[in-house]
Amino acid sequence: KTHDIHMTAVESDIVIDGGGEKYAAWTFNGTMPGPVVRVTEGDTINFTLTNPATNKNPHAMDFHAAEIDFLKNYKAINAGETISYTFVAKKPGIFFYHCGAPPMIQHIARGMFGAIIVDPKDASVWPKADREYVLIQSEFFKNPGDVQAMFDRKFDGMMFNGGIFKYHPFVTGGGKLDAKPGERVRVYFVNAGPNEFSSFHPIGEIWDNVYESGNPANKLTGVQTYVVGPGSAATFDVVVESAGAYPLVTHSLTGALRGAIAVLLASPD
Amino acid sequence: KTHDIHMTAVESDIVIDGGGEKYAAWTFNGTMPGPVVRVTEGDTINFTLTNPATNKNPHAMDFHAAEIDFLKNYKAINAGETISYTFVAKKPGIFFYHCGAPPMIQHIARGMFGAIIVDPKDASVWPKADREYVLIQSEFFKNPGDVQAMFDRKFDGMMFNGGIFKYHPFVTGGGKLDAKPGERVRVYFVNAGPNEFSSFHPIGEIWDNVYESGNPANKLTGVQTYVVGPGSAATFDVVVESAGAYPLVTHSLTGALRGAIAVLLASPD
Amino acid sequence: KTHDIHMTAVESDIVIDGGGEKYAAWTFNGTMPGPVVRVTEGDTINFTLTNPATNKNPHAMDFHAAEIDFLKNYKAINAGETISYTFVAKKPGIFFYHCGAPPMIQHIARGMFGAIIVDPKDASVWPKADREYVLIQSEFFKNPGDVQAMFDRKFDGMMFNGGIFKYHPFVTGGGKLDAKPGERVRVYFVNAGPNEFSSFHPIGEIWDNVYESGNPANKLTGVQTYVVGPGSAATFDVVVESAGAYPLVTHSLTGALRGAIAVLLASPD
Ligand SMILES: [Cu+2]
Ligand SMILES: [Cu+2]
Ligand SMILES: [Cu+2]
Ligand SMILES: [Cu+2]
Ligand SMILES: [Cu+2]
Ligand SMILES: [Cu+2]
Ligand code: NA
Ligand code: NA
Ligand code: NA
Ligand code: NA
Ligand code: NA
Ligand code: NA
Ligand SMILES: [Zn+2]
Ligand SMILES: [Zn+2]
Ligand SMILES: [Zn+2]
Ligand SMILES: [Zn+2]
Ligand SMILES: [Zn+2]
Ligand SMILES: [Zn+2]
Ligand SMILES: [Zn+2]
Ligand SMILES: [Zn+2]
Ligand SMILES: [Zn+2]
Repeated sequence: KTHDIHMTAVESDIVIDGGGEKYAAWTFNGTMPGPVVRVTEGDTINFTLTNPATNKNPHAMDFHAAEIDFLKNYKAINAGETISYTFVAKKPGIFFYHCGAPPMIQHIARGMFGAIIVDPKDASVWPKADREYVLIQSEFFKNPGDVQAMFDRKFDGMMFNGGIFKYHPFVTGGGKLDAKPGERVRVYFVNAGPNEFSSFHPIGEIWDNVYESGNPANKLTGVQTYVVGPGSAATFDVVVESAGAYPLVTHSLTGALRGAIAVLLASPD
Repeated sequence: KTHDIHMTAVESDIVIDGGGEKYAAWTFNGTMPGPVVRVTEGDTINFTLTNPATNKNPHAMDFHAAEIDFLKNYKAINAGETISYTFVAKKPGIFFYHCGAPPMIQHIARGMFGAIIVDPKDASVWPKADREYVLIQSEFFKNPGDVQAMFDRKFDGMMFNGGIFKYHPFVTGGGKLDAKPGERVRVYFVNAGPNEFSSFHPIGEIWDNVYESGNPANKLTGVQTYVVGPGSAATFDVVVESAGAYPLVTHSLTGALRGAIAVLLASPD
Repeated sequence: KTHDIHMTAVESDIVIDGGGEKYAAWTFNGTMPGPVVRVTEGDTINFTLTNPATNKNPHAMDFHAAEIDFLKNYKAINAGETISYTFVAKKPGIFFYHCGAPPMIQHIARGMFGAIIVDPKDASVWPKADREYVLIQSEFFKNPGDVQAMFDRKFDGMMFNGGIFKYHPFVTGGGKLDAKPGERVRVYFVNAGPNEFSSFHPIGEIWDNVYESGNPANKLTGVQTYVVGPGSAATFDVVVESAGAYPLVTHSLTGALRGAIAVLLASPD
């Protein structure tokens, strides 16, 4: 199957918490993270990136699911330009995508990242999930122009899917992730960085399975916490036996307590 | 089998090095780490936490071996209160336990953590160990009230089992871990954090096997060093062929050289 | 088979970038990293370290491939002394070696490290590589005498094989790693630290296989990025399908953008 994917680099303010706080972000398609791309192993993706003439910076796109020349395909294009390339998603998994224009550390920190899921061609290679989420961890730097702070790893908050405590029901405007008891919940987890490592843990639960890079061949069983480096990703399955709240966190607490908590709420019908 | 486990939150000074240095710790049962809990896969644990009226802070208990509602079971109780809950240890492994009262980063840093071992129901799923140790890495912050230093990752020492160079025979008051040549020594290793990642290595040796989260299904072979994130744990087997000293360290040297060295001393009879 | 390996501790200036910048290094045999040692599983290594009388500091050698008493074999020897020991490389893989003289964090930071490859006795346990590289990541501290900066993790650059952007063709004097389309390129990767974790990723590619500690028994498939702790190592295979440039990086971008980029350049004949 062939997919035509178009994205636009957008330099504009976005809302980053439930209180309506704004941030001068750079994004794909106006949201941080950008849209989830989903294809099946073996599919072809025709990708086009537009950098509108109204933008001020070069941008680029790097898909971790692709196996293609970096120089030709991931090069930064100026405002007013468009680039297209084609790749085959040959390996199943959950993959990071991001802008690679220099300084890449800033383009990621300001919001130019997302996830691409490549489903295995043979769905029977792993258990069927009853419910699925994509969760992307990234560092928040309050001054989007302070590149030195990014190099110095002085982040001001830790986000899941572009929000501080975005899925925390006790915070103003906070949401949640829903589930039902007994369901196998599959979390496609990406660590966008740009620098920090994540130690991903479900409070009140144990990952039934973890799949490194989301590849069904890389199966772990009964894992409390799993390290996902910056620029990495993995798939986490949890069977939530009982109704209740299960906060997903990075157990590196300076990150969790500054925003990287997403509550999975299991309620019967 | 059913286990009744009672623990008490204790706010009191403890000794943290061989020189008798004291620290205003918060602990389970008066020691840092708290008692090792050991059960078998499938066992039921009836757990009770008491927060004595003489304490000044709320406390809580989070067992990584449990699969139960966070809100109801891991909630912080005030001084003078008691909480009880029950769980079944369904997955084998080595698991972290810790207080989750806010700010959790401080409750862990001050000493409210420990380990629970869940032995596999079928002991034949992995080799029999000749000798076993539990080792918990955690960061030491000299000012237990400086929560900002904890968020800033400015630790002052790195501990194994609540002591700086606790198992280092060349340090005043230092102990050691004993073994005999030819034995399979099993180390149940927990990284309590609250923030740092560990790179666990046996100087002079190679881990014969590493089991992620301590689950026998997750077997690695011949590993020099293995990353254990904060809030994570793994089981490490080493067969020490020859008499000698084998310092176990985190190979992130700023941690090892500030206290995270435990010498395994193999001596014939 | 038996190998006689001799190394000399050398305290002298070395060149660390394409511009000819010099650094007051301490090395094995005058280069940072030291020579690659290569043996086969089961081989015996007779090792001798000479610390010339003209040196100013004690030095030592710790081979992660060895399983021998730390005290007797890895002890620091003074200038003018020699030490010898013998070990059998019993476990296949890619292993770190380094000086362990105190303060070890400085001896590694200044350049006393290298790699030893222990090929599996039975070569058929994994695919044959068409091309092989050894890549060692290490932190650069511009003031080699500032041990406190090393403890504080304030590195000034990140190196592969002892150079900042050493294999980056667009940098003055920069080299590259060559390959041909279709080849299986095997990268023996070591993280020398002394402190930081690596998140090793091939831009424009996906690791076809990753082997923890380089042991063929520890096989992962289709991995975008893999975490290698300080003092650890792993083997990475990539089949580069198309001609092009594939920068190998740590995806912890504060490291990559300060020097840890090595371009793999795939060109047809
Ligand atoms: Cu951009
Ligand atoms: Cu990337
Ligand atoms: Cu507490
Ligand atoms: Cu926890
Ligand atoms: Cu030295
Ligand atoms: Cu070492
Ligand atoms: Na883990
Ligand atoms: Na569960
Ligand atoms: Na390793
Ligand atoms: Na051994
Ligand atoms: Na990964
Ligand atoms: Na490829
Ligand atoms: Zn960009
Ligand atoms: Zn927990
Ligand atoms: Zn469960
Ligand atoms: Zn507490
Ligand atoms: Zn070592
Ligand atoms: Zn051994
Ligand atoms: Zn040295
Ligand atoms: Zn990439
Ligand atoms: Zn490939």
